[in-house]
Amino acid sequence: MPRLYVTLIHYPVVNKQGECIASAVTNLDLHDIARTMKTYGGLGFYVATPLTDQKALVERIVSHWTSGVGGEHHPKRKQALELVRVADSLEAVCEDIGRREGVAPKTVVTSAKQREGSLRFTELRAMLEEETPVLLVFGTAWGLAEDIMIKADYSLAPIVTQTGYNHLPVRCAAAIVMDRLLGSGRD
Amino acid sequence: MPRLYVTLIHYPVVNKQGECIASAVTNLDLHDIARTMKTYGGLGFYVATPLTDQKALVERIVSHWTSGVGGEHHPKRKQALELVRVADSLEAVCEDIGRREGVAPKTVVTSAKQREGSLRFTELRAMLEEETPVLLVFGTAWGLAEDIMIKADYSLAPIVTQTGYNHLPVRCAAAIVMDRLLGSGRD
Repeated sequence: MPRLYVTLIHYPVVNKQGECIASAVTNLDLHDIARTMKTYGGLGFYVATPLTDQKALVERIVSHWTSGVGGEHHPKRKQALELVRVADSLEAVCEDIGRREGVAPKTVVTSAKQREGSLRFTELRAMLEEETPVLLVFGTAWGLAEDIMIKADYSLAPIVTQTGYNHLPVRCAAAIVMDRLLGSGRD
Repeated sequence: MPRLYVTLIHYPVVNKQGECIASAVTNLDLHDIARTMKTYGGLGFYVATPLTDQKALVERIVSHWTSGVGGEHHPKRKQALELVRVADSLEAVCEDIGRREGVAPKTVVTSAKQREGSLRFTELRAMLEEETPVLLVFGTAWGLAEDIMIKADYSLAPIVTQTGYNHLPVRCAAAIVMDRLLGSGRD
């Protein structure tokens, strides 16, 4: 079984002007990515933000569904949101996975733009058949800051279509990527 | 180029207890499905609801992005939301597509559950290479009412994974389905 983790980074990411910012947490990002991970057998979903109020917001949303009335009424939602963990930074995410797994994960950043030397989906699928855990890194706002991109072990090829329009919501991009990596194929 | 349309049905759908209801429109459903359709070259995204206040809500959201300040600041978002149209019912959606295309679309309903005789993804991809437009039908809440399911021309195989957990958000399910139908594959 593949050992896949996902993190959604809220800092450092870039805004429309390419400036480095900390973005706000979006409620539905948590729900959608957690539910998609639960569907495809992902092991943990880290919401990464250094902002104290944003971390508290995530904890509050998650606890509503995992230990509050939300979970009683929607047990399936509870199962999904139990995958969510909060972390300060990408480094903290890697440390936590390293503690759980006994080995640091390979980090794979994602982007809407093509980068030199990116992994093809088929190459990352092969990597997921090995024992080492893999951490897929998604960015909010206008994407991951370059600083994070260059420090990662690998980057994944973008989702490219014939239209040239490449502005998928991160929730949908994450779903498509997980389906391509862990799904049964498109037969 | 495939002639694919999508509709998101808010009535008749079922609730958790299996009762027939009209669901409320979710803002991010509009954005996410419109952006995904724009990415994959879909031709129109119909939000179907018979409720007057819900239709007005959709019109207000869409006009903010297509003719309001939203579109000036986010032209890419404007391009996506220009695909959104409001309709009373699935029948009204088919009539509108029929008027535009000169031929009624083949209707293909989706479900999280396996149904007898469902199309495989590869079969629907072959159908999309023909000239007749195809209308993919997604349900909100706990899914499309049986009445809609049985009237459709076809049903599409569900997204199935090894985990047995099948509670994807409709936004994510629509993205995965469009990627499987119109994407470049998972190489």
